[in-house]
Amino acid sequence: MKHDNWTVYLSGEIHTDWRETIATGVEKAGLPVTLLSPVTDHKASDDCGVAILGAEGDDFWKDHKGAKVNAIRTRSMIERSDMVVVRFGEKYKQWNAAFDAGFAAALGKPLITLHDPDLTHPLKEVDGAALAVAQTPEQVVKLLTYVINGDL
Amino acid sequence: MKHDNWTVYLSGEIHTDWRETIATGVEKAGLPVTLLSPVTDHKASDDCGVAILGAEGDDFWKDHKGAKVNAIRTRSMIERSDMVVVRFGEKYKQWNAAFDAGFAAALGKPLITLHDPDLTHPLKEVDGAALAVAQTPEQVVKLLTYVINGDL
Amino acid sequence: MKHDNWTVYLSGEIHTDWRETIATGVEKAGLPVTLLSPVTDHKASDDCGVAILGAEGDDFWKDHKGAKVNAIRTRSMIERSDMVVVRFGEKYKQWNAAFDAGFAAALGKPLITLHDPDLTHPLKEVDGAALAVAQTPEQVVKLLTYVINGDL
Amino acid sequence: MKHDNWTVYLSGEIHTDWRETIATGVEKAGLPVTLLSPVTDHKASDDCGVAILGAEGDDFWKDHKGAKVNAIRTRSMIERSDMVVVRFGEKYKQWNAAFDAGFAAALGKPLITLHDPDLTHPLKEVDGAALAVAQTPEQVVKLLTYVINGDL
Amino acid sequence: MKHDNWTVYLSGEIHTDWRETIATGVEKAGLPVTLLSPVTDHKASDDCGVAILGAEGDDFWKDHKGAKVNAIRTRSMIERSDMVVVRFGEKYKQWNAAFDAGFAAALGKPLITLHDPDLTHPLKEVDGAALAVAQTPEQVVKLLTYVINGDL
Amino acid sequence: MKHDNWTVYLSGEIHTDWRETIATGVEKAGLPVTLLSPVTDHKASDDCGVAILGAEGDDFWKDHKGAKVNAIRTRSMIERSDMVVVRFGEKYKQWNAAFDAGFAAALGKPLITLHDPDLTHPLKEVDGAALAVAQTPEQVVKLLTYVINGDL
Amino acid sequence: MKHDNWTVYLSGEIHTDWRETIATGVEKAGLPVTLLSPVTDHKASDDCGVAILGAEGDDFWKDHKGAKVNAIRTRSMIERSDMVVVRFGEKYKQWNAAFDAGFAAALGKPLITLHDPDLTHPLKEVDGAALAVAQTPEQVVKLLTYVINGDL
Amino acid sequence: MKHDNWTVYLSGEIHTDWRETIATGVEKAGLPVTLLSPVTDHKASDDCGVAILGAEGDDFWKDHKGAKVNAIRTRSMIERSDMVVVRFGEKYKQWNAAFDAGFAAALGKPLITLHDPDLTHPLKEVDGAALAVAQTPEQVVKLLTYVINGDL
Repeated sequence: MKHDNWTVYLSGEIHTDWRETIATGVEKAGLPVTLLSPVTDHKASDDCGVAILGAEGDDFWKDHKGAKVNAIRTRSMIERSDMVVVRFGEKYKQWNAAFDAGFAAALGKPLITLHDPDLTHPLKEVDGAALAVAQTPEQVVKLLTYVINGDL
Repeated sequence: MKHDNWTVYLSGEIHTDWRETIATGVEKAGLPVTLLSPVTDHKASDDCGVAILGAEGDDFWKDHKGAKVNAIRTRSMIERSDMVVVRFGEKYKQWNAAFDAGFAAALGKPLITLHDPDLTHPLKEVDGAALAVAQTPEQVVKLLTYVINGDL
Repeated sequence: MKHDNWTVYLSGEIHTDWRETIATGVEKAGLPVTLLSPVTDHKASDDCGVAILGAEGDDFWKDHKGAKVNAIRTRSMIERSDMVVVRFGEKYKQWNAAFDAGFAAALGKPLITLHDPDLTHPLKEVDGAALAVAQTPEQVVKLLTYVINGDL
Repeated sequence: MKHDNWTVYLSGEIHTDWRETIATGVEKAGLPVTLLSPVTDHKASDDCGVAILGAEGDDFWKDHKGAKVNAIRTRSMIERSDMVVVRFGEKYKQWNAAFDAGFAAALGKPLITLHDPDLTHPLKEVDGAALAVAQTPEQVVKLLTYVINGDL
Repeated sequence: MKHDNWTVYLSGEIHTDWRETIATGVEKAGLPVTLLSPVTDHKASDDCGVAILGAEGDDFWKDHKGAKVNAIRTRSMIERSDMVVVRFGEKYKQWNAAFDAGFAAALGKPLITLHDPDLTHPLKEVDGAALAVAQTPEQVVKLLTYVINGDL
Repeated sequence: MKHDNWTVYLSGEIHTDWRETIATGVEKAGLPVTLLSPVTDHKASDDCGVAILGAEGDDFWKDHKGAKVNAIRTRSMIERSDMVVVRFGEKYKQWNAAFDAGFAAALGKPLITLHDPDLTHPLKEVDGAALAVAQTPEQVVKLLTYVINGDL
Repeated sequence: MKHDNWTVYLSGEIHTDWRETIATGVEKAGLPVTLLSPVTDHKASDDCGVAILGAEGDDFWKDHKGAKVNAIRTRSMIERSDMVVVRFGEKYKQWNAAFDAGFAAALGKPLITLHDPDLTHPLKEVDGAALAVAQTPEQVVKLLTYVINGDL
Repeated sequence: MKHDNWTVYLSGEIHTDWRETIATGVEKAGLPVTLLSPVTDHKASDDCGVAILGAEGDDFWKDHKGAKVNAIRTRSMIERSDMVVVRFGEKYKQWNAAFDAGFAAALGKPLITLHDPDLTHPLKEVDGAALAVAQTPEQVVKLLTYVINGDL
């Protein structure tokens, strides 16, 4: 008595290997999960707008073009997902991660946050909208295992 | 002239074998039905939050964490379902079953309730939102057979 | 450049073979169409409620139970459909057909009506909400052929 | 502890004075209700399209133009309403009434039907989607009185 | 910088004076709140269906008729509300309260539950969907005061 | 970590081979994309209404019938799409293309416009709603390649 | 039995006085209508982005900024409206008008188009989505009079 | 031809007087605007959960309770707003501001961001979803003046 496929979007921090840890764990557990993610190549993600659609003299518009091209991917993937995991790391502003969390919450997607305990206070509103607050990618794999198979 | 697949969520009581009866009946009838259900292992369902995400000193938060982890599964499954069957038994408060019924009703999911006639009065509002009120799992199988194949 | 599957719900009149004509035409044209319909066995459709869920002394409740059981099928099918064809014949009130048309229109489903020209005046509101008004099942097949393949 | 205004759309039959009976009853009971209705002048309703937007040689298009002009009013009113009452009389096809009922049902509007008991069988699907089935306009006034004020 | 009106639906238990306590508190605090509630006269609520629409021989249908008439009021009120408070008491099954909570949650309405701590375990799924879990009506008034005016 | 299928609707100009250029590019890049389009045979598109449903004396109604038959296809395809590309050429009014863009925008579909730079001013509102503004079909292929595979 | 207020958005052509004609007619007829419109000062509408948010070296971005600022107004107004009138004139591309029509159609807003008969063919898709096709602003006033008051 | 009221939610940074600057500007310009905001008393906002609903030993749950109580206010206000302004300052993580932006974007609310140019790069995804990117509260007042009155 289970779904035969789950789509999970992995949003947020792109400088550690947490997505790979989850992917490996999911595979090992044999879970019927399709993992989606934004483009995690930082430079490609920054340059995509001008690289494809033409150079800009002004950095604002370079960023703007790139952000919108990335949004084609991220919004489409969030809308298709059964749940959204958002990871916050120690560095950078990561406002796009929090934006994704708000976007997912407004769509009613089950939200899982993933971050160290010392980020609890600034993330309290995001955590408040989440159905689970994890500290490690291994916990996310355990959550998926339980949610999908019922196994603790 | 039929759908080739139906997804049916079986919500509610977890202490009798009504889900198995329906599963057996569906299989015998050769119906193209995927049956979904919450995690029906009572202890796992109670413990999942603290087992995965860390212990709590306060029972309220233990329950809270577990309820939310289970909600990742149940809401996702209800949203994917073509219809929702909610079973009420003789024991326990079963407020989660009634909550699921209200949730499904608000989403416009066809609702079938399943309970003994002596629960009619306290369940009148839930039954009032249902498209069928069954007393036995066998009736649910007959409903599925008719709804899907048109066979009485 | 086409969809690879279309789901079409055939609502309304159940006393002539218009559904079979469309099914044959669709098959001959090799169209990737799944045709859905209500239960078209008049007696089964009338009796399903009491046959499955228990007899009623009062005809109102017999009808009520049956109508709701049928609604599990019809609403689910209308919601899954890419378009809805509603056929009105010469006989009977056929209010359920007009109800289905209104239901489909409110969901934004493309609506095709199918009826003789002498029903134009009483059907003007239903036709006003339709994207095509056909007089024969053969025209419906031609509509499907054009809409799906672009072939006139 | 009450709403301070309720908007109720009165759809359907236009050849008896049921709307006036309800209006009088609502006023007498001092209910905070705004009653809306389609244009009930049969001739104006039939002619509006060609009278305003230009004559048509073909009756089909005369009807079509008129039906759509009327739909500007009726859809807007149904969407604004808190509940929809649909009256079916003895005469005419009244498919527009059943269409309105289906439209309202798909929008999740509470639906009340109003008709004589001898129309029970052909109206069973419409009644099956209703929250109340009344036989007289006086009963509709009593329903409004109870729903709004809690008075039996 | 505030809303100038808030609509709050008070669902659930009807045998203690918690609604009056909240109403008095709201008035004393001068909050711009409209409080809505189901019909809280137990007998009227049970009898409304048959009293208005005609007697039934079978208790099931008496209950069914009444539950649906009450649903005209409760669903309309829940949909209009800015937030929903659901009270669970010590007695009765109160499945309608849990149903309302699920209904409100699926509509995205902010949910506040109100119950004694000894109901925490059976209410964990309902509490898990709530934005606040209160134990006394006075806490609900304080919540409203803070949410509306920002005053602790 | 990718979707395994993307549906892209190609709306607008039908007198150059831009759709074929995109199709070829998509195939060469091995992208998991289903391309959809309106019927691009100008004469068939103009005549479909009268050819299938009967001749009209008045050109307005000939156009009306045809436009609605085409709408069965276009609306269904837009609703199924993950993103919508709208091409504006040098000739004709192309109001249907702008209509499709508005329709897609209101549904929240990611929108890509495709046009020469000298159309920038009159298209500013449409471009303002787009997530990417391309000048060549090759850029659209590059966008798809990046959005789907993350490759620049 | 009428609404007590109607909000009508007047989209499209800004170089003739059709909006004033409608406003005068509405006032003369004493209709309870609030008329909304985009900013109709062509220069202000073109310059608003750079005038408020800072100059741009590139015309594309000047247009882009302005179009989005105008979109704050137009989308908000379309969403608030009970119906949308879109006027197409003889000159200019007017793709924004067609975009508004598509946007309104996707939201289910009743749509009235207003244009000369010689634009019928290029506007056939937009007219196909409209509930009325008018040729003069006086006809729009008559439509409003009939829709609101039932007077021909 | 204007709306007679606009509701604008001012989300984000709470340590400078930008809200007051906008409020003063709106008043001076005589704009028909209702400004809404979160509770901006930092300490009250942090403490509200435990102050009203009972102390917590664990800071995580103190934060959690407070964040959810605040969410009753913020979500309700965002849903009522015609547009949402989100201000990002130099200090703090401000993930709740980005969360609100994502939430508003998913609801289709017109979004205005307000921040210094040196935050452009980390805010590019949020800006990419905005209809205007302002640097000063005075620009926001000018935007409101133009959007509401059409005056530059």
